[in-house]
Amino acid sequence: MKRIALLGATGSIGLNVLDVVRRFPQRYCIVGLAAGRNIALLRMLILEFKPQLISVLDAEHATRLCSLLPAEWRTKVVSGTAGNELVASLADADMTISAIVGAAGLLPTLAAIEAGKDIGLANKETLVMAGKIVMAAVKRNNVRLLPVDSEHSAIFQALEGGRKEDLEKIILTASGGPFREKSPAELEQATPEQALAHPNWNMGRKISVDSATLMNKGLEVIEARWLFAVPLEMIEVIVHPQSIIHSLVEFKDGSVLAQLGIPDMRIPISYALSYPARLSLQMERLQLSKCGHLQFYEPDYDRFPALGLAFDALQQGGVMPAVLNGANEVAVEAFLEERISFPAIAKIVALTMGKINTGNEDSLDDILAADFSARREAGKIIDELSGRSCPR
Amino acid sequence: MKRIALLGATGSIGLNVLDVVRRFPQRYCIVGLAAGRNIALLRMLILEFKPQLISVLDAEHATRLCSLLPAEWRTKVVSGTAGNELVASLADADMTISAIVGAAGLLPTLAAIEAGKDIGLANKETLVMAGKIVMAAVKRNNVRLLPVDSEHSAIFQALEGGRKEDLEKIILTASGGPFREKSPAELEQATPEQALAHPNWNMGRKISVDSATLMNKGLEVIEARWLFAVPLEMIEVIVHPQSIIHSLVEFKDGSVLAQLGIPDMRIPISYALSYPARLSLQMERLQLSKCGHLQFYEPDYDRFPALGLAFDALQQGGVMPAVLNGANEVAVEAFLEERISFPAIAKIVALTMGKINTGNEDSLDDILAADFSARREAGKIIDELSGRSCPR
Repeated sequence: MKRIALLGATGSIGLNVLDVVRRFPQRYCIVGLAAGRNIALLRMLILEFKPQLISVLDAEHATRLCSLLPAEWRTKVVSGTAGNELVASLADADMTISAIVGAAGLLPTLAAIEAGKDIGLANKETLVMAGKIVMAAVKRNNVRLLPVDSEHSAIFQALEGGRKEDLEKIILTASGGPFREKSPAELEQATPEQALAHPNWNMGRKISVDSATLMNKGLEVIEARWLFAVPLEMIEVIVHPQSIIHSLVEFKDGSVLAQLGIPDMRIPISYALSYPARLSLQMERLQLSKCGHLQFYEPDYDRFPALGLAFDALQQGGVMPAVLNGANEVAVEAFLEERISFPAIAKIVALTMGKINTGNEDSLDDILAADFSARREAGKIIDELSGRSCPR
Repeated sequence: MKRIALLGATGSIGLNVLDVVRRFPQRYCIVGLAAGRNIALLRMLILEFKPQLISVLDAEHATRLCSLLPAEWRTKVVSGTAGNELVASLADADMTISAIVGAAGLLPTLAAIEAGKDIGLANKETLVMAGKIVMAAVKRNNVRLLPVDSEHSAIFQALEGGRKEDLEKIILTASGGPFREKSPAELEQATPEQALAHPNWNMGRKISVDSATLMNKGLEVIEARWLFAVPLEMIEVIVHPQSIIHSLVEFKDGSVLAQLGIPDMRIPISYALSYPARLSLQMERLQLSKCGHLQFYEPDYDRFPALGLAFDALQQGGVMPAVLNGANEVAVEAFLEERISFPAIAKIVALTMGKINTGNEDSLDDILAADFSARREAGKIIDELSGRSCPR
């Protein structure tokens, strides 16, 4: 019986994790759940999975949650980053699944690593912001860091078929998102509603917009750099609109290994849970003859500059990936609030990166300071762009 | 330094093996070469690779070869099946590459296994005819049997990324051959010249015709059954005209691993030579964005009945796969001699299978007897079909 602490329980990944756990009650149980604001859904999950500890966004949400639960739960509800860290590092947990969205995932994930938990990582910001520190902590604490992202799970599985020293290239596939065929003029007019309509994957709002800008792929490039300990030059992105091949690795003999499957997050999730074994998932199977044609294109860095910015940030190194990520989070939020246009997201990230010098990423404080500065700068730029004169 | 005995040196696979050996003179050398009739080419290979022992088709060809070589080579040329077996089991060889075409590959390959050599297997008939005996010999002699066929190499590589007990399905890809889109009426008129024009692979005559009938894929199904120790029900065939995905395996979590590459036999050959390491092959790399669309279709068992016959033979078991193979070799030869039509190849195989009862495949004698009977029956049927009244 593997005991799981789950961060981001009410999100898209979190609910898929719980669906896998539900299918294998003899193998997995939930000891901790952390979520944000979705108290009604969290209440139902608590009653079903009966965790030891629950964390929510803040004290106000904790109070509201307690009022919806039987009295004995009151002492089991905590909140905030500290609460997330408690859930992440629960003494009884064997594995922590980090599926919080955004920079908020970093500290609880690090806490779980320092507490010696194996990690199922869906929060890419953990590695984007603090890859060096996190990988050092993984090594120091001798824990497993298993990818949950479909692309990184694909690479991880394909790499099992070869030897790391023979690896020549990692090829991340990108669906291209909902705007793959849009002209620059159409992108200028793109609405949040359009950006949220992803062709293949059903995901949260932030990551859906990131998929539309290709920033999501950029963040995945940075994540792959750390997760697989490869230099930037060994990572490529290819657009594959059907999302059937989840990613590929090329070895030095020219042989390419790939992982394929239907676009269902329960496959990579279950592999992270059960590795190195596999679970017998009773789900639809991939039927290649019904997939239509599989297509592959080079990414268009002009229409989707966010991808190039991510490569730039990785090239500059230091805290610059954290700056990229912080600015992007603020810009995506502004886009979702209809304060800025779709192409302005990448523009704001680029302007923010131009205003902040990169620095050493050896301490968490440096990284969090860079994240803070990036958000403040991005906020200022958005205010200027959107014509608001009052300071944030 | 790995010392190689190569059977089928002047064939398409053999020349590719020698090209790989040529590229890595510090890692590989040739200690034995066996070929058939192509004395002129063999002479050049001997002078380049300087093997200890050479075998050719028969005594006549041995004499001709000796006359073309400096005198000191005379004692190093042998011939016939016995000669092939000597080369295959050379004391100095670490590995024997079995790349003879057809049933003639069986005995020398078995000799190599019994002599304790690791095998690089390109001769699929070895397993089609005598899978049970050969796999038992592999186990008893504790040797490695490494696939050289691109499809089986792909499966072998993909399986390295998972655990055998989690395997759910093996999916062999087939290009569909040059007649993939031909109507039954067009197939009736198909010529040897058309059948030899394979769209993706440059191969020998026999295997090219087998690719056109899909019998090649049928033989590969039988080969896979033995090589990977899976039941018939776990093997599927899918038509993939671009030959970029070389085959796939599906695990019980729905995850599919595949090996891809440009269609160049030097990739699977080098992997068999260097396994578990990989060689740094300086060759063209797969560029998915330049491959066009990848397509997948269910095979058409009506237009290409040979594939179904192979599944039938495997289902019937015993010596029936040897019967299928023997009849097919004779029928392909008759087609190449323009004695029978293209669709008659499968018809002759089916009629031959109908005339011979399957029997126990526990002894090599039983298998060779079945092969002999199949050839005789197929020959009779061809004589009848082609209107020759004189008995063979």
